[in-house]
Amino acid sequence: MSTVTTLPLGDLHASLADPLLDAMTFLNEVTERYPGALSFAPGRPHEGFFEPEDVHAYLDTYLTHLAERGLSGSAVRTALFQYGPTKGIVADLVARTLANDEGLDVDPEALVLTVGAQEGMLLVLRALCATAEDVLLVSSPCYVGVTGAARLLDLATVPVPEGPRGGPDPAAVRAAARAVRASGRRPRALYVVPDFANPSGTSMPLAARAGLLEAAAEEGLLVIEDNPYGFFSREPGEQPGERPTLKALDGNRGRVVHLGSFAKTCFPGARLGYVVADQRVAAPDGRTTLLADELAKLKSMTTVNTPALSQAVIGGMLLHHDCRLRAANAPARAHYAANLAVLLRELERHFPAAERARLGVSWNEPEGGFFAVLDVPFTADEAAMERCARDHGVLWTPMAPFYPAGGGERRLRLSISALSAPQIEAGTARLAAFVRSACVRAAAG
Amino acid sequence: MSTVTTLPLGDLHASLADPLLDAMTFLNEVTERYPGALSFAPGRPHEGFFEPEDVHAYLDTYLTHLAERGLSGSAVRTALFQYGPTKGIVADLVARTLANDEGLDVDPEALVLTVGAQEGMLLVLRALCATAEDVLLVSSPCYVGVTGAARLLDLATVPVPEGPRGGPDPAAVRAAARAVRASGRRPRALYVVPDFANPSGTSMPLAARAGLLEAAAEEGLLVIEDNPYGFFSREPGEQPGERPTLKALDGNRGRVVHLGSFAKTCFPGARLGYVVADQRVAAPDGRTTLLADELAKLKSMTTVNTPALSQAVIGGMLLHHDCRLRAANAPARAHYAANLAVLLRELERHFPAAERARLGVSWNEPEGGFFAVLDVPFTADEAAMERCARDHGVLWTPMAPFYPAGGGERRLRLSISALSAPQIEAGTARLAAFVRSACVRAAAG
Repeated sequence: MSTVTTLPLGDLHASLADPLLDAMTFLNEVTERYPGALSFAPGRPHEGFFEPEDVHAYLDTYLTHLAERGLSGSAVRTALFQYGPTKGIVADLVARTLANDEGLDVDPEALVLTVGAQEGMLLVLRALCATAEDVLLVSSPCYVGVTGAARLLDLATVPVPEGPRGGPDPAAVRAAARAVRASGRRPRALYVVPDFANPSGTSMPLAARAGLLEAAAEEGLLVIEDNPYGFFSREPGEQPGERPTLKALDGNRGRVVHLGSFAKTCFPGARLGYVVADQRVAAPDGRTTLLADELAKLKSMTTVNTPALSQAVIGGMLLHHDCRLRAANAPARAHYAANLAVLLRELERHFPAAERARLGVSWNEPEGGFFAVLDVPFTADEAAMERCARDHGVLWTPMAPFYPAGGGERRLRLSISALSAPQIEAGTARLAAFVRSACVRAAAG
Repeated sequence: MSTVTTLPLGDLHASLADPLLDAMTFLNEVTERYPGALSFAPGRPHEGFFEPEDVHAYLDTYLTHLAERGLSGSAVRTALFQYGPTKGIVADLVARTLANDEGLDVDPEALVLTVGAQEGMLLVLRALCATAEDVLLVSSPCYVGVTGAARLLDLATVPVPEGPRGGPDPAAVRAAARAVRASGRRPRALYVVPDFANPSGTSMPLAARAGLLEAAAEEGLLVIEDNPYGFFSREPGEQPGERPTLKALDGNRGRVVHLGSFAKTCFPGARLGYVVADQRVAAPDGRTTLLADELAKLKSMTTVNTPALSQAVIGGMLLHHDCRLRAANAPARAHYAANLAVLLRELERHFPAAERARLGVSWNEPEGGFFAVLDVPFTADEAAMERCARDHGVLWTPMAPFYPAGGGERRLRLSISALSAPQIEAGTARLAAFVRSACVRAAAG
């Protein structure tokens, strides 16, 4: 009994053997080993818009708001310090923001405030994928948060290839759903990021959105729409045009569960996200509830409540901006758009059309957001990434880990969110030098 | 496609059919229906110790601390606003507090800051209970948070009866572990709340703690120690005596995973908890990590990070109190101790020895904490609870839902944490009137 217990990793849950986790660990190690490297890897927002003093102001704004709504000092204290309603305390402000910015008419009762959109994913997957027969369809490449949550819950996922213009192709969705049914399982839902997807950076055009909803309806799939970057899609006041949310397009049909996050529109440190879950749930006795109420029951088993502190500070920030985050984020949007333009311009400069045709290099041209994808004629794996950091002083993210069923070996993700324009210029030059040498190396090998 | 999607509850995850959730919903409904009723139900802390202004002061204290440690303004901003390390940012302060208050020598690297102890439970259960063969032993009656987390993860739990003096009896632990193995499954860990357990209020004496650790070691069980109330167990500076934590008793043997919470010692609205997981984990390639690092990988799939805001405010509170929460909570401890004394005194006054012997009424006498349990000669179920609220204007919590395998039908939980002494006096009088009438009713029936 005197020896320290050692647990074989194999005795712990299988999700800990996820190669993705090793990839992230490796990326962090390389980042630490080459502190001088410019990094196109992190997807975190630009920090220039944050000031600690603001937290005090936002908190006061929210507490004043509660007092103005008639809450006594003791009731305000309770709201801030105590356990609170599992669905959260700022649903009314989030609903107003969704109405102003997305034209969504959301009943606050259909909202659950979560600890980041990640907890929302976990709750939605847990509620919908009830048995070993239930399968989640995911666009491929896919955000790693949702595949990770599925692994933690031992849920099966089936990738649906993302089309060139973004989003899973409706025909591929139908085929995947039918193949799953043919295998005796139940395709339950489809996870998709319609706007500036992580990692591909692509956004679905209007027709693709309508087609996806139609395919989902035909196949009896719910659509889980994850929308962390949608706020950057257009100027404040500009009409949705090409990019209404799937939730807005679906109207009152209840086919879409909508996940939101304040990590990019406010700041990540609050870890505040939300789920819009207005579907009706019918109990055997005929009573009906909202899916949001069922998600709240699951949340009581994951985090009990979302911290009132985070809700109060973000709530104050929403009030400060009159519940209009598109307007509040106009400077951020312009900053990211300018960064992306610099990246695309510099890629063009270093790889003119003839040159990139000769080398077999290409990239997509996202209309906004944080990410773009570079296709190269060599394996862009961890070894290549480390060589690039060591020999050229620039970092990026291999795409392969974003493909649940393999693929993406010759693709790399470039994020512009945390860099300045001069850093992007210098970084692209270094990246170009690496790509040329790797092309030579590949041709030689 | 024009109808709103309705989901049969039976198509959602089975944990949503948990009768416990219905019990909690019913309790909330009754509480709303009888707003005038005095309530012995809620386990939330007394609010008299909180002031909103304190949040600003604590936040500033923490940010100043970071600056004094040499962080640049930009680094401070990053710590507060950005995504942060998955294990958290205040582990050093939590480790100092555990050293000061519990005599625990904890490597900050072995700490994971979580969104309440609830997320800690979820992570520990997920890591340890890897397959359908792995079983969690829980003391019975048991805190509902852990059985809920197990249901969400589809994990089997096996109750081990709590002895009269608190904590599962070592012999019962051995018997349960052997029965589980005999059934072809693996008893993986034992969950226990050694101090002022919710719901029973009992605390394990030193001998019982040592015996429990011995039984766990013999049966190859890890012990999951949940310690939300331990801080109230003694005066600041007083020696552990009868009540060292199981983690402290275990020394460096690595048999105990320790869960902590700041909900009672600081405030619930921060939703901050932590896990001490210093066990070594050995990968197939021979490399070893700390269990805390593996839990952090799982946390990246549940909430990504614990909100930096919550960590900063609680971190500032710890600094403000020189990382000594027992001293900071001396007034709270005195308040709860006085409340509990009033409850026990009033129960004695309304049910003198002869009287309670005649009626068949008894109660336990916890040495502190929030809860006591009353045993009655009638079924103390939801119907009885509602009659009590309607006819006598007092609320309590039926114990039966805390028994994973049934039991507790004639027991009710009384919480004194959120009431004043006069409310406890009035509430006990009302409760006594209800108990007498229910005894008559039971005798007649």
